[in-house]
Amino acid sequence: MRNIADNTVRRLSLYLRFLEEFQHQGATTVSSEALAGRGGTTSAQVRKDLSFFGSFGKRGLGYPVPQLIKRLREILGLGRRYKVVVVGAGKIGSALVQYRGFHERGFDIVAIYDEDPAKVGKPWNGLVVQDAALFEKEAAELAPDIAVIVTPGEAAQGIADRVVRCGVQAILNFAPVQLQVPEHVTVKAVNLVLELEALSFALASR
Amino acid sequence: MRNIADNTVRRLSLYLRFLEEFQHQGATTVSSEALAGRGGTTSAQVRKDLSFFGSFGKRGLGYPVPQLIKRLREILGLGRRYKVVVVGAGKIGSALVQYRGFHERGFDIVAIYDEDPAKVGKPWNGLVVQDAALFEKEAAELAPDIAVIVTPGEAAQGIADRVVRCGVQAILNFAPVQLQVPEHVTVKAVNLVLELEALSFALASR
Repeated sequence: MRNIADNTVRRLSLYLRFLEEFQHQGATTVSSEALAGRGGTTSAQVRKDLSFFGSFGKRGLGYPVPQLIKRLREILGLGRRYKVVVVGAGKIGSALVQYRGFHERGFDIVAIYDEDPAKVGKPWNGLVVQDAALFEKEAAELAPDIAVIVTPGEAAQGIADRVVRCGVQAILNFAPVQLQVPEHVTVKAVNLVLELEALSFALASR
Repeated sequence: MRNIADNTVRRLSLYLRFLEEFQHQGATTVSSEALAGRGGTTSAQVRKDLSFFGSFGKRGLGYPVPQLIKRLREILGLGRRYKVVVVGAGKIGSALVQYRGFHERGFDIVAIYDEDPAKVGKPWNGLVVQDAALFEKEAAELAPDIAVIVTPGEAAQGIADRVVRCGVQAILNFAPVQLQVPEHVTVKAVNLVLELEALSFALASR
C-alpha cells in the first residue's frame, strides 16, 4: 500500500469525513455522485479511489455507509490510538492540542518538550513542559508514534535526527525547513508562510 | 507565470528564507550547492528553478545574495503588503496572528469575523470580532486581498462564495472541505487532521 499517492490518501480522509456526516444525517447508503459533490471531485474519481481497496457498493445502490466508514478507518490506520509528542511549546502546538478532531481521530498528545528554561516546568494544556534534554530518556518509556516539530527552523533538523534515533517513524513538521530523514520515516509538513506566499505569488502573477 | 508548478513556488519560498539566513550570516554570494544542501533538494534543481526567472549567478562564482533575494521577493509578490481578513475567531486564527513571519512577510490581518453572537464584540489580538453578517459592507471599504477561512466545514463553502463575490481572489482554507471557487480564485488548504491521517496511513501501511 505504500505506493498509494498522497493525493489519494487525502481524498480518502475527506471521504471518511463526508461519510460520517452522511451517517450522522441518517443515511445508510451513499452514491459516488453524492460523495464527489461533497468533496469537490468527480464520481469517477471516487469510484477509482475506492476500487483500490476492494469492491464496495453496487451499481445503482450506492455504497453502504457504515461498512465503507469501517473500511476507510482501517485503510487510514485509524483503528488504534497514536501517541504524539510535541517538541516546541509555542502557540501552534497549543492550537493543535485544542484542535477539534485531533483527539477524536485517535491522536493523543502524551508529552511536550522545549529547550527554553523559561518554559520547562510550566503547565501546558493538561501536561507540563519537559526539558528537551530528557527526550531520549522519556521516549524509551513512552514509545511515541508521531513527533510534531514546532521549533524554529534552525533547531528542527537536530530534533528530527533525535526523534528518528528514538524510533519515531512519523513526523509532522511546522518548522520552515525541509527535513532530511531516512526512507522509513514519513514527514508531513505544514508551513503557513509558504501557503501565504503561494497566494501572494498567485496574486502577483495576475 | 501562472503555469509555474506549486512545488516550484514552494521551493522559491524556501530559497528566499535560506538566502535571508545566509545574508544574516554575512554571505554575499551563495552556490546552488549551498542552497540545495540547506533545503533538501539538488543543486541541479536549484539552477533549474532559478533559471525560469532569468539569469542570476555565474558559474564558479555563485549567486549574488542581495540581488537574488530582491528578485525572489518580486517573483513571490512580496514587494507589497496584503490585507488579510480572517473568518472564524477560533484558536487557529489566533495562532496565525501571532505566527512569527506572518506580519514580517507583509501579511496584515485587518479584520476578524464570526457568526457566534458570544464572540462578536470581543477583543481578539488587537482587533474586535465583527459580526460575519457585516462582511460584505466592510469588504467594500477594506478591499481585502486574502481571506483566511477557519470556520467549521459546513459553513466554509458559503463563506467562500461570499468572499469571492466581494472580489477576494486568494483564500487560505483551514476548514476540512474542498472549496469550489471560480478559476480566477486561488485556494490553498491546510487541514491538520488530513496531515495526521496521512501519517497514520503511512504507519499502518508498514
